[in-house]
Amino acid sequence: MSPKESMQNAILSASALEISSLQNTRVKNLVKLTKRRERDQQQLTTVEGVREIDHALAAGVIPTAAYICLPLLNEEAAPIVVHLQQLAKTTHLSLVTVTPAVFSKIAYRGDSGGLLVVVPYLRRRLEDLPLPSTPFLVVVEGVEKPGNLGAILRTADAAGVDGVVICAGATDIHNPNVIRASLGALFTVPIAEASSAAVLQWLRAQQIQILAATPVGATLYTTPDMTGPVAIVMGSEAQGLSPVWLTAADYLLKIPMQGVVDSLNLSAATAILLYEVIRQRQGFDPHPTR
Amino acid sequence: MSPKESMQNAILSASALEISSLQNTRVKNLVKLTKRRERDQQQLTTVEGVREIDHALAAGVIPTAAYICLPLLNEEAAPIVVHLQQLAKTTHLSLVTVTPAVFSKIAYRGDSGGLLVVVPYLRRRLEDLPLPSTPFLVVVEGVEKPGNLGAILRTADAAGVDGVVICAGATDIHNPNVIRASLGALFTVPIAEASSAAVLQWLRAQQIQILAATPVGATLYTTPDMTGPVAIVMGSEAQGLSPVWLTAADYLLKIPMQGVVDSLNLSAATAILLYEVIRQRQGFDPHPTR
Repeated sequence: MSPKESMQNAILSASALEISSLQNTRVKNLVKLTKRRERDQQQLTTVEGVREIDHALAAGVIPTAAYICLPLLNEEAAPIVVHLQQLAKTTHLSLVTVTPAVFSKIAYRGDSGGLLVVVPYLRRRLEDLPLPSTPFLVVVEGVEKPGNLGAILRTADAAGVDGVVICAGATDIHNPNVIRASLGALFTVPIAEASSAAVLQWLRAQQIQILAATPVGATLYTTPDMTGPVAIVMGSEAQGLSPVWLTAADYLLKIPMQGVVDSLNLSAATAILLYEVIRQRQGFDPHPTR
Repeated sequence: MSPKESMQNAILSASALEISSLQNTRVKNLVKLTKRRERDQQQLTTVEGVREIDHALAAGVIPTAAYICLPLLNEEAAPIVVHLQQLAKTTHLSLVTVTPAVFSKIAYRGDSGGLLVVVPYLRRRLEDLPLPSTPFLVVVEGVEKPGNLGAILRTADAAGVDGVVICAGATDIHNPNVIRASLGALFTVPIAEASSAAVLQWLRAQQIQILAATPVGATLYTTPDMTGPVAIVMGSEAQGLSPVWLTAADYLLKIPMQGVVDSLNLSAATAILLYEVIRQRQGFDPHPTR
């Protein structure tokens, strides 16, 4: 028996359920979860892809269900399948095998490798953010495009921020395309969600310096001392930041632009600012500026 | 007569042609241009959207044809239409009015505002790049995703680089989605295209320092002196850089990452490096690092 065959046999024996009908209630519900309103109501979303599911499990997320399509599975998925089988024994996770036709109906993507899990919405209150003595946060207001938010989450992960704070509103952090664009960083970076007013009050209570990025900023982004507690606040490309932030920020940061199009994209601007914080904090400046 | 009506009358009188049939040869050819092979053969591509066309015209690009759908036009488009009418009098540009049904067949996007132009491929030889005494270039190898290349072009525009050099291969710089993702920066930033070997030889002949970004880099990205002639070399997210660059670079630059997902996206990494060049060159470091 090949390793693949033994994996398949193990899954089949652990699987509580096999679905081959597109009319199955579970299939219909998964299709419903493509709508934000349904996700918000059920407080559930879906995660596809070996890498993304791996990050979710590693972060301690316990799926409510796992859908596995054996013919699409590759050996890369083996350790995850083992993990899911263990969870199925000790939690309410139900392991379900599905046919390729069913899988293609429930999957957003063509390249998910035969694995899809349903996970509960992330807990995301400000007071749950684990803050160190010198917090480094990024606050995001009004970002609508899943690709932009996903890219910011990747950058936040790489920069090692202590948390990403989303100002509640249009942003739909549990959109499967956010999870995809973030490569799973949605699960690896601590997240909180609250209104701009609540976030502002909380930052002030924690005595965290507020640095807001805006094209009308008067302060060059390298000027403020970022080695203390700091929150970098970013607005949407289309709308910019709301007056709440423009009036309350300790500094309005400007990234100089020399071009004609005159607009860094949001994830590029975020990367520049987060890495300026790192540059200052880690003190790496072997090449002195003139 | 309203301003919109007078604009429409002016267009109708200048228009050489009106198309209402989806079977028209020009319509069929525009649909063909959605394929790279056809674009490469005809050396033509399409540009949609008021802002993008504006940047192309401002950069001196002369379209071979302009397709205008009057019912979809808004007043923002008026100055561009005037510009196109003038070009129609003095160049080979043909001004064509089309019905909404025809426009929706030829347009990639839902939001192009009723304007689409056909433009010749950009001239893009290394020797045509206008180099100042201290060049600042970005070299891009193997980038396939139009969104990534478009984002890099926006960042390159904002950073004021002297040129973006594409190492020929998979990258299809005239893909309409590159133009869209770049917001038209494809036309505002000088571009050249050549094989990696040719680009390397050319950089050396110009005595331009080669700084290649790679996860295996041994040099912190702030270490090298970037105030002289410099080329930042970026590879694709999937493949990284080819051995040509890994062996030839003066420094292999590393951007420190602290996360779990462990991967900045390509445009974020490019933004961090281009703005490090700017930071060093412009000497803005009012906040000394520790």
